Formats: sequence, C-alpha cells, structure tokens
Amino acid sequence: MLKKRMALVAVVAGAAAVLTIPALTTAAKAKPAAKTANDGRAKCYECHEEVKALKENSKHAALSCKVCHDKMDAHMSDPEKNKPVTIIDQALCAKCHKEQFESFFKTDYEVSARKEKGTPTGRSPMQDKLLAPYGFTYEHNETRGHAFMVIDQFVVDRFQGGRFQFKDGWQGITKSGKTWDVLTDKAEGNKEWKPMSQTAMAGNPTCIQCKTSDHILKWKFLGDKDPKAKWSRESNIVDVAKDTNNAVGCIHCHDPHGTQPRIVRDELINQIDKGASLFAGKDGKTDLKVISFRDGFRKIGVMQKTDSRMMCAQCHVEYACGKGYEFGSGKGVGFDDKRTNHMPQTQVMQLLEHYRKINFYDFKHEVTGAQLVKLQHPEAETYAGSVHDKAGVQCHQCHMPKMKGKGGKMFSSHGVVRPKNHIQESCLGCHTKDSVEKKRNEMESVINYTRGKMRKAEYWLGQLIDNYAAAQRMGVSPTVLDQARTKHEEAHVLWEWWTAENSDGFHNPSLARESLGASIATSKAAVKILTDAMAVARKDEAKK
Amino acid sequence: MLKKRMALVAVVAGAAAVLTIPALTTAAKAKPAAKTANDGRAKCYECHEEVKALKENSKHAALSCKVCHDKMDAHMSDPEKNKPVTIIDQALCAKCHKEQFESFFKTDYEVSARKEKGTPTGRSPMQDKLLAPYGFTYEHNETRGHAFMVIDQFVVDRFQGGRFQFKDGWQGITKSGKTWDVLTDKAEGNKEWKPMSQTAMAGNPTCIQCKTSDHILKWKFLGDKDPKAKWSRESNIVDVAKDTNNAVGCIHCHDPHGTQPRIVRDELINQIDKGASLFAGKDGKTDLKVISFRDGFRKIGVMQKTDSRMMCAQCHVEYACGKGYEFGSGKGVGFDDKRTNHMPQTQVMQLLEHYRKINFYDFKHEVTGAQLVKLQHPEAETYAGSVHDKAGVQCHQCHMPKMKGKGGKMFSSHGVVRPKNHIQESCLGCHTKDSVEKKRNEMESVINYTRGKMRKAEYWLGQLIDNYAAAQRMGVSPTVLDQARTKHEEAHVLWEWWTAENSDGFHNPSLARESLGASIATSKAAVKILTDAMAVARKDEAKK
Amino acid sequence: MLKKRMALVAVVAGAAAVLTIPALTTAAKAKPAAKTANDGRAKCYECHEEVKALKENSKHAALSCKVCHDKMDAHMSDPEKNKPVTIIDQALCAKCHKEQFESFFKTDYEVSARKEKGTPTGRSPMQDKLLAPYGFTYEHNETRGHAFMVIDQFVVDRFQGGRFQFKDGWQGITKSGKTWDVLTDKAEGNKEWKPMSQTAMAGNPTCIQCKTSDHILKWKFLGDKDPKAKWSRESNIVDVAKDTNNAVGCIHCHDPHGTQPRIVRDELINQIDKGASLFAGKDGKTDLKVISFRDGFRKIGVMQKTDSRMMCAQCHVEYACGKGYEFGSGKGVGFDDKRTNHMPQTQVMQLLEHYRKINFYDFKHEVTGAQLVKLQHPEAETYAGSVHDKAGVQCHQCHMPKMKGKGGKMFSSHGVVRPKNHIQESCLGCHTKDSVEKKRNEMESVINYTRGKMRKAEYWLGQLIDNYAAAQRMGVSPTVLDQARTKHEEAHVLWEWWTAENSDGFHNPSLARESLGASIATSKAAVKILTDAMAVARKDEAKK
Repeated sequence: MLKKRMALVAVVAGAAAVLTIPALTTAAKAKPAAKTANDGRAKCYECHEEVKALKENSKHAALSCKVCHDKMDAHMSDPEKNKPVTIIDQALCAKCHKEQFESFFKTDYEVSARKEKGTPTGRSPMQDKLLAPYGFTYEHNETRGHAFMVIDQFVVDRFQGGRFQFKDGWQGITKSGKTWDVLTDKAEGNKEWKPMSQTAMAGNPTCIQCKTSDHILKWKFLGDKDPKAKWSRESNIVDVAKDTNNAVGCIHCHDPHGTQPRIVRDELINQIDKGASLFAGKDGKTDLKVISFRDGFRKIGVMQKTDSRMMCAQCHVEYACGKGYEFGSGKGVGFDDKRTNHMPQTQVMQLLEHYRKINFYDFKHEVTGAQLVKLQHPEAETYAGSVHDKAGVQCHQCHMPKMKGKGGKMFSSHGVVRPKNHIQESCLGCHTKDSVEKKRNEMESVINYTRGKMRKAEYWLGQLIDNYAAAQRMGVSPTVLDQARTKHEEAHVLWEWWTAENSDGFHNPSLARESLGASIATSKAAVKILTDAMAVARKDEAKK
Repeated sequence: MLKKRMALVAVVAGAAAVLTIPALTTAAKAKPAAKTANDGRAKCYECHEEVKALKENSKHAALSCKVCHDKMDAHMSDPEKNKPVTIIDQALCAKCHKEQFESFFKTDYEVSARKEKGTPTGRSPMQDKLLAPYGFTYEHNETRGHAFMVIDQFVVDRFQGGRFQFKDGWQGITKSGKTWDVLTDKAEGNKEWKPMSQTAMAGNPTCIQCKTSDHILKWKFLGDKDPKAKWSRESNIVDVAKDTNNAVGCIHCHDPHGTQPRIVRDELINQIDKGASLFAGKDGKTDLKVISFRDGFRKIGVMQKTDSRMMCAQCHVEYACGKGYEFGSGKGVGFDDKRTNHMPQTQVMQLLEHYRKINFYDFKHEVTGAQLVKLQHPEAETYAGSVHDKAGVQCHQCHMPKMKGKGGKMFSSHGVVRPKNHIQESCLGCHTKDSVEKKRNEMESVINYTRGKMRKAEYWLGQLIDNYAAAQRMGVSPTVLDQARTKHEEAHVLWEWWTAENSDGFHNPSLARESLGASIATSKAAVKILTDAMAVARKDEAKK
Repeated sequence: MLKKRMALVAVVAGAAAVLTIPALTTAAKAKPAAKTANDGRAKCYECHEEVKALKENSKHAALSCKVCHDKMDAHMSDPEKNKPVTIIDQALCAKCHKEQFESFFKTDYEVSARKEKGTPTGRSPMQDKLLAPYGFTYEHNETRGHAFMVIDQFVVDRFQGGRFQFKDGWQGITKSGKTWDVLTDKAEGNKEWKPMSQTAMAGNPTCIQCKTSDHILKWKFLGDKDPKAKWSRESNIVDVAKDTNNAVGCIHCHDPHGTQPRIVRDELINQIDKGASLFAGKDGKTDLKVISFRDGFRKIGVMQKTDSRMMCAQCHVEYACGKGYEFGSGKGVGFDDKRTNHMPQTQVMQLLEHYRKINFYDFKHEVTGAQLVKLQHPEAETYAGSVHDKAGVQCHQCHMPKMKGKGGKMFSSHGVVRPKNHIQESCLGCHTKDSVEKKRNEMESVINYTRGKMRKAEYWLGQLIDNYAAAQRMGVSPTVLDQARTKHEEAHVLWEWWTAENSDGFHNPSLARESLGASIATSKAAVKILTDAMAVARKDEAKK
C-alpha cells in the first residue's frame, strides 16, 4: 500500500498554520468549480493531498494531471518503481499562455551582449583595479534579457575556462532557446582542450538554481547532499551545466498545479521563514505560506496575493553561492557549508556587519589584502523601502507592464523590460499627468547623479589602494596598514553594491547616495591615515 | 520737501558724458511720442529725473509707473516713509512679452540634470584628482537651462551641506518656477539636522547676484555693507538664499523703464568703467553709459545698441566670489575684501599673472600644495577675439535665435539654446549656403579636437601630481618640489579654464589649442624636473 | 631609333611566367574587339608593348592614348626629349565612372573629424601613457573617409609641427578636394614661423605613397633614390607634401590601360613576390602577376580576378615607414635603409618576432625604456584567416557594397562605408534571412567584447609601467627591470595592434581575443615579477 504523503504547511513568522488553501490567491480566483472529470486526478489526490489543495478550485483545476506529467500509466501501476516525468519546459505553458511565452523569448535587439562593465562607459570602469584578482575581472557584463540568462552565464570568460562557446560563433549571440542547441562544449571529448587564456574557473550549482527551473525536482532544499537529489551544492558544475537546458521557467513564480503566485528558491523561503523582513507588511510578516513536499525534501512558498517583489527576489538579491573564506583565519568555506547558499536579506549599510557575523568573505584584494565580499545584483534589497516600494508598487508593474497582445487583449509582458525604454507602459499608468519626456529626464537625472557618486567612490577606492602600496613600499607600520585595510573592506561593500545592482540607483536614489557617500568618506579616511603616516616616515628619513 | 535725486552719468573709458539719453537704443527707437497721459508719471519724474531720461520716448513711455510699482499712493503721500514696492517677477513682463517668458521657462527635456563633470564621459573626468580638496569635487554638474539656475545652485551637494532639497524628491528635478515652491530647507526648524555626508558648505551672496535679479534694490554697488542694503557680500548665505525666489530676470538685460539694453551686474560695470576692453570697439571703448542711482548706491550700464556680449558677460565670465587666500603668506581673504566680488576681464593666457598681481587664490591642492585658482564659466572671455566675434556676431544670435511664435510672429527665443541642437536657426542665418549636417559636423569636429586636448592636459596634470607625491616620498629636495609646484599652478589655470567653460572650445578653438598646449607643455616640464631629480636620488641611494 | 622597352613579367611564388595577358581579368572581359581606330595607338604600342598587352581586348581598348596622356604630339616627334604627361586625377576617370567618383568624394557627415583616440570614449583611452613619448601622443584620430586621407594626414598636430592648416579655418574640415585648395602652409614665406606648441615633426615620403597616387611615376620601386625618380624615401617630406594634391586615385586599384584589378604599392608587390602568403589560395599562391616597367623602375601587380583583399592591403596593413632603431644597440635606422618601407605581412602573434628578426623598432617607452613598435592599421592582416575570409568574402563586399545609382543602375559604392551603418547593403546580401537589427546587435556584441579586452590590456600595461617606475625608485635590481621591460615589449604589440586596427575586433574576434588575452597575461607576469621583487626589497629594508 502506498505511503501517504502529507503536505507539511510551515508557518511564516509566526502566522497560524492553515492546512487547506482555499482560493489561495487572486490569480487562482474565479472559475466555477470544474466538474471533476473522469481524468483520473481523484486517484492522484489520494496520495498527493498537497496538490489537491493547490489545484482544486483554481484556474488549473480542470486540467488533467497528464497535461504536465508523462508516464502516468506506468506510475499508477507501480508508483514506487515508476516515477512520472514532470514537464518543466516553458513551451508546455505556452500552449495556453502564448503571449507571455513569446514576450519572454523575444530578443531585444536594442540591448547588445557582452558589454563589459569594466570600461570607461560601463557600469564599473575601475573594476579591474578594485576587484583584482577576483574572477569577475576576467569578464563581467551588463545584463541582457531573461531568455539569455543561462547561455550568457555559461559562455562568459570567467566560467569554467571558456569551455562553453556558441555553436554558430558570434552569430549565436542573438539566439535564445535550449542551452545546448545554442552552445557547445569545446572540452567534451577533446583531451587537448585547455582553459583559454585569461579565463577563470568560476561557476557553481547553487548559482544555477537562479538561472533555470530545470533542477527543481532534483535538488534538495538548500542544496544539501541527499541520495534522492541528483544535484547538490557539491555537484560538479560542468555536469549540472550539461543538464541545464532552459532559462528560468514559468514555475519559478507560478504554481503549475493551482496558478498561485509562488517562490521556489530555497534560501529565500528559508530566510523569510526565519523572519527576514524586507518584504514584510506593517505587521512584520509576509503572507507567504510554506508548503513542504516529500518530508521537507522540497519546499515552495505560496502567496495569497501576487507579490512580485518576492518572486523577483528569488534571484535579484545579494547572495553567496561560491566558495569563500572565514575572516581573520582565512579558513576555506567549501560547498559542503550552507554559507555557500546564503541570502543575507540585509540592507547595504548593515551588510558587512552581517558577513562578519556569519564569518564569510569571497576573496582577498590583490594589493591591500582586504577581505572582500563580492556582491550580486541586489535589486530587491535596493528597492525595499524606496519611495516606489512605500507607495505599494511592485516589480512587475514597471518591468512587466501590461501590453497589447496580437489579439488586442492586454497581457503582462514577460520580457522584463527596462522601464526607461517603455515609459508609456511602465510609468504613465500611475504618473498619469506626466509625459514620457519628463519621466525620462527624471530617470536620467537620477542615473546621472548616482553614476557621479559611483565614479567618485571608485576614484577614492583607487586612491586608497595606490596609497596603500606606496605606504607599504615606504615601510609604514603594520598597524597603519591594518587600519587602512579594514577601511578598504568597509568602503568596498558600500560601493560595489551599486555597480552589482542594475538600476544605477533608480531603485533607491537616497540609499545610493547614503551608501556611496559613506564609501567615499571611508576611503578618504583611509587615505588620510596612509598619507599622514607617510609624511611622518618622510620626516624620520630626513632626520637620518 | 523731497531731496532731489540726480542721475550721475559716468563715462566709460573716457567717452564724453551725456546727461540726456535721447533714443538711447535701437530697442527703444520708433514709437511716436506717447501722449503724456494722466497717469501721474509726471509727478514721479519730479524726483526721478534719471527715470524720465530712460522712459520718455521709449517703447515703455506710455506705461504708468503703477504697472511695475506697488504702494504708489502711500509713497506719494509720504515718500520718505513709504517706499514703493518694485515688482521684479518675470511674470509681470510676460503680460506683454509672453513668448519670451514662456521660452525662458520651457524645460528642455533633452538636457538631463545633475550630470557630473567628473565622470569618464563628463567634461572633466579627472577633476576629483585635479581639484582635490575643493568643494567642486563634491558635485559639479554640466549646466541646464536658465530657468533652473537658482534651483540647481541651491540643491547641489557642495552648497550648504545639502540642506536644500526638492520638495517632490526626484520628481522635482523637472520643475522650474519659484525657488521655494520647488525646494525645501531640511535644516529649518530641525535641530537634529546635520550636513549630509560628502557635501561642502560652499555658497556666498555675490555668486547669487548672477543667478537672480531679486536683490537688485537690496544690494549696494559691489556688495559693500551699507545700512540701506539688506544684503552684502558678508551676509549669511542661507538668509540670502531664502530671499531668492526667481531665476535671473528680464531686468538684468533690459531696462524696465525704457527698454534699453543694459547691464546691472556691479563688478562688470566697475571693470568696464575702469577700462576693461574685452568688448571694446576699434576705438578701445564700449558704448556703455553708466547711470548711478541713489548717489552711487546702485549703478546700471546702458547701451546705445544691443551688445549681448556684455549682457551675457554679467554672469558668463570668470569671477572670484568666494573666500580665498594670498599667495605665499596664505593669509585669508574674507568677504569684507572686494576681491571676493571680482571679475578679472582677462584672457586665459594672462590670467594667472592677473591673480598673482591682485594676490588671490582659491585653494591649495591636496597633494602638491599648489596655490590654485578655481575658474568659472568664462564664456565671454573665450568668445572675445574669436573668429565669430571679429565677424561681429553676438551671443544672442547663436544662443537666442529668432523662432516662430504661436501667432506666427518671429521672436527672440529666451530659452538660451545650445546651437548644436538648433543649427537651422542659430547658424544658417549667416551660413546660408551650408546644411545643418555640415555645420553639425564642423562643430563636432571642433569639440572632438578640444576634448582631445583637454584629456591630454588632464593626463599630464595627473602625471605631475603623481610624480610630485613619489618625489616627495623619495625625499627629493624642496627646491625641486617648489619648481614643480609653481608649474602646477601655471598648468592648472591653462587647463581648468576650458572645463569651466561650456562650449568645449567652440567659442575659440585656436585659443583653446594655445592654452591647453601650454598647459601640457608646462606639466611635462614639471614631470621632467621631478623624474630627473628622482633619477639622481636613485643613483645617490645606489652609491650608499 | 627608339629603345624598345620590354614588359618584364615576374612570377609570383613560383607560378609560370605568362608574357601575354589575354582577358586578364573578369573586369576586362567581354567587349567585342574594338576596331583599331585611327587613333594612333598602334604607333604607341611599337615601344610600349606592355601597354598593348593590358589594353587590347580590354574594356578600355578603344580609348585613344590621348584620353589620358597629354603632349603626345611632342612626344611622338622626339620621344626621348619630350615626355608625355599622364593625367592621374580621378576627375578624368569620372567622365565615364561618375557614380564611383561621386561616392568617393561624398562627405559622410555622420563621421566627425579629429576624434582623438586617446580619450575615455576613444579607441585608445590610455595611449598618452602607453605610447609616451611617441609622436602619435600629440594627436591621433579615428579615421574619416578616403576623400580626406591626404588632408587629414597633413593637418594633424603630429605632422611637421602643425605648419599645414585649413585655409578656411574649421570650416575647411568638411571640404574635400585638391589638397592645396583646402590647406595652406603657414610656414611658407614666413621666417617667423615656428612649430606650434605640442606638435611633432612626423611625416615621411613612404607614408604618403599610401595616401595618394600622385607620385606613381615619380617614385622608384620601393622608394630608392634614383636620378629618374623625383621623390624617394629620403626626400624632404614638406616638398613631397606640396606635390601631393589628390587622395589615392582610381589607378591604385584599377589598371587604367586595361581596367584589370591591380596593386601598385611597391612593398606589397615586393612581399607577395617574395612569398608572403596572407592572401594566398590553397596552393599557397595568389594569382598576382607582376609587370615591370622601365627595367624595374616601377612595377605593378595585376590580378586575373578581383581580389580586393590585396587592393586594400596596399595601405590597410601594418608597415614601417618612419625612421627607427635597432634592438639592443639602439643604432638609428634612416630613410636610406629599406626597413623604412617595409610591410611585415605577418600576423600579430608572430609580429614582434618578425621585427626582432629584421632588427627594427620605432621608439623607446618614456618610463620603462621598452623598445616598442608603433603599429599601423593592420586591417588586412586581422581579416586574413577570419571566418568571413575563409568564406571567400572580400573587403569590397562589405565596405563598397552595391548601391543604386542616380539612373537606377547598381554600382559599387566607392565611399568605403562602415558596414555597421549600411547593414542592408553590406551584410544582408549574404545573410539573407537576417534582419538589420539582428546583425547590428551581433556586430555591437563583438565590438563590446573586444573593447572590453582592449581596456583590460591597457589597464595591465599601465600597471606594468607604474610598477616599473615604483620598482626602479626602490632600487630593484636591473635584472628584474630587464625582465619586466622585455615583457612590456611583448605585451605592447599584442595590444596596440587592436587599437591601430579600425574594426574593433570585428575583422577577427577570435584572433583579437587570443592576442589581447596574451597581452594581459604578459603584463600580469611582468607586474608579478616587479611586485615580488619589491616585496623582497621591503623585507631587506626592514631587516636593516
């Protein structure tokens, strides 16, 4: 007899547990109760109670389980032996949600690829100096659309020595689709292959969990090793890459059983469950309900109402996913350690403190030896608490605005646009009295201002590094160098956050100002410590 | 009985004094003598003879004094006790001059705000190094239209610790109008307020005299302290700011009584009166007539014919308005000193000599200790003697071209345009055989060339500074350092002039070339002095 | 009696000599044998057999010799005493080839002049540091159209002290045409003239042979001195410049006698003749036939089929044409030496080796003393072996695409376009299924990527130079400095090639990647050598 699986419904931040999930979400509302057709799903529900709770009364209620699951007959005949196959491909969803699918995969030719951040007109002109010798100095590009998120990650020079290249050469750069239709592995079956010059060996399985939904059933919660999990944090990254064929799927944000808005990224669920409050309401809680599958092997977080801030925060947050070190001792932190799948859910001003507390840094700076944290796209954090956030605006309203579909019907664009290029749709719905030109001017002004501050922060970090090297050459005391190095660690985080972030400060101009100003002040203080010490050393030398 | 006020007509550069001002200007010509209506102005003229001279026979002759002056009845009843109120607001002029008014305040959305000069694509990419530690390194933006001149001045991070901010946050950035409708004072009534991080406390009353006409009757000639003057050079800048509600008014350039073209900025009148010759004709003189009010309390300079070079030179010149120091001794120069309201009226090649003569510099460079002059928008100087100037072209022909108004009638645009964006109107009136594309190409080529030279001058100034620091660390002799420092002072002025100026060399490409070339040569000479001395020091060290 | 001149037909790379040249080229095909008109050319052929071979049966067969040669009657009456005059001006060809002529001289206003490479947005932002003190640091611009190639060369600040300037000032910048209608010599008849500040005295006669066809009959093969040659490598450059009135002519690529595709640039003929294989087919040979005139005084290379790769390679290759030095000894190499008219015809990865073998470098770096080669526009080399080259695409297909002429007939545009601005014509003829937007996106992506690598290579060269100076100041051993200096020489060539080249890597992205990667690796290795040595020096000092 079948072992009955229970849906364990965890409770977020102390909210009362609710086992039944009636009309869980606005997205799932309406639709007269579908007639329980003879499609056999009642049989499925006997074991999969948690699925029933999601599916029945939802817009997807009437869909047969066979729509998304293959090899069902074999499974029904011997459930333990024969696992069904779950179809994860976005193309399945596209059978009904065509406009969303097509907008997701449409290439925006206005945005070119491989635009290196470390150039004078890039987002981080001085990164080769400020991030040395970290992997991102090998190639670090401004981002393109979601359809390219896996491909661009695999093809970048810092990833696995450049072994993954376009099948069609540079003509492949505009091609989205299945990863392995577009890319090839130059090392496969080629014993002569060596990493290309000036590449790094970066890449790890946790990082990939933000780029794809392909491993959703093969990955244990938080990526721990488990016999039931094909992949874990410790898996070989090349093997995981080879098994990754799709950019992040519909199911990352939409529950396929019941269409509820949801999140699936393990560490975000974990942090919110533990009380992270970036997206909490006035009561300090979100409405997220955590549902556990297979005795906690896998969890999802389901919302009553769409909150795209959490959906996007599955990836657009600062997180640690690579190997690192512990402060002071420099002891290595490997993939067996949970800190290699960690989302701080912390604002920039407190971030270094957080990393010091969990005792993790990414790399030492080449010149100063500062223990630096490498930051990642913290768009969710920068947005949290901003003017727009306080006004109740969510990510999708600006980045996935309603557009008119082919049939004339409005739909949520899933291309994830840059609002600056779509002001009519992204802004003027709320700012009804303003013009596109006015809004663009305001956006550009914010960006001008923030970029100005970023350039200043970089200049002063550079001054810190150069003066450190000069002071070291002069034989200035280790105490002085230690002080300067600590300030480097502080100034670095307060700056890099903003070049890792993709809005050039627009998500939160005042926080950008505060953080970058503090970075500059800290670097200047370090420069003063160093130049003062050098002035003393000069006088001492002159006396000899 | 009323004390009769005499208009003192000063004489410019030795021209014969003319007390009567018949048909003073082309702008005031024509119009059949207005019938001296029963509007009571005859009564006004009894005391205000200088006003009569300007007003009668002018286009404004028939306007009653009450049009621009309030509380006249009270004034007439007791003139000494009750002062009339003079309406300075541009909106009053707009009752007749609507197109001019509207063009002045129309926001050009093509030009975004807060575009920091100290960025790779800005006008002065290396300013944080070259201007350290001066206030302009905190925020130094490319300019916007005249309508924003007060607002942008108050809101910039280097002004009074960032206490003035937009009421509407970043949405305020596109809003022109009354200063205090747009801005708010964060420090007012807030004892907790502290200057924002990475701001400066810059700002002074003299500087404001170029941004507004609001203080025209409250400011004594040259800003000296006087019981009759509400404001002086020594006033508290925040108080002055709070009393500043309008961008520069019509009356800065147009005499309201008689429509004569005029200037009112005190130090320009003073310098031309003393013989400054930038705008002089072949005879070494301008046609400016200086009229004094209230026994020299206030002066205006009236022209026979419009010369917009002088009108614009009221602000678009190099001037000193902040506190400074004396060369060598480093003795402070305070606002009580007339050198804090000074226009050199001197070309770039002679400028440092001029400042050495009057013994004034703005700040010491952080690294070299060079005594540096901070330059300001010398568009009038760069234009003087240029090809266009020699051909008789004046500022307004390119920057305020005639445009077609709503009624189809041509009017002088008062938006003060960038000619590059208005080539048809700004250039092709004279260059009748050329195309917009051709002229744009030529402009861009001049700008390309000048920017190339600016970047070179900056590179070599940077080399000078870096080599100075290295030489100092090596213990190179003070004599060598002194030589290099003096060259830094020279090379700096010859460079910074062009980044302070807003035409990227187009006003005078050959002067830009000469000046920037000399800056580069001077910096290179300093670098050679330093590297030669370091080579000697190396050999001396090796011998030990 | 006339001395009969024989056409000497040299053989390229071992191909069999063919004296007769029947239907030499596709361009010369067709046309029924022109009736041998009574135009007297039969008489000409009696002496000029090589001309007959080219002309008869060609499209130009029926043209009388007098069409292109003046003073023929005098020549016929006394051939030795009276030389005919050959008309070289493109305007003569334009009588029939009007569209080609007009497209050549049409100014592309989209491309502005004097765009300095050494600026943050230029192609070589750090050149002032990396090329110091070479002449190109005085002014080094991105290129404009062919019509300006002579003018832009003469007017640049590094050429002869800036003595050549536009007659019309900056308005001259858009004027193409005869050199001396556009430019004037400021030094001519002016004894007071001195070189302008911050200019160099660069320029040499060989370089000019790529800019003009004017000297084709006055220049001996390879520029050797000869009584019969008006100009040689050793001629005074100003005299040669004054005699240069036209940009490169039709006859550089098209044989005027027979319309055969050809090359005339001596050193390219010489190198291909000696076996250079950049443009060879599978058999290791080109189809070039070298024809010698006047006993080897002059040679041309005639093709059976158009190969624009060779035509363009007459100029768009790396070549040495200025004075230089020998490695190690630093012995000067003067214009009497054939190495001052040299085309390596060698790929970038082998280039330094080549120059070491022929023992020639251009200048020593100001800081490190590295013996550096200054590179020139190697577009032909970068293209050779590229994906497009292997596919059989030639230069003209992308850069001189067919366009519709005024009469509706298609013609080869001779404006030499930037394909990025003409994707429809330049790309979609082959890439028939692609869109302009897609191809532009791919181009931009290649350029983004290559520029990213260039910026990195520059950063690391800069680090090398700065660390060298610091190490030198610390007294690090000459052995260490020598090692770093040698690496500087290597890293420099591998970088500068790509900033000298005009495609931003598009000609050959993978070669650009390989070369720039190797440059970065080499610079990093040098930095490590220097910083390691400084660390040791610090410890030694601390022990004292």
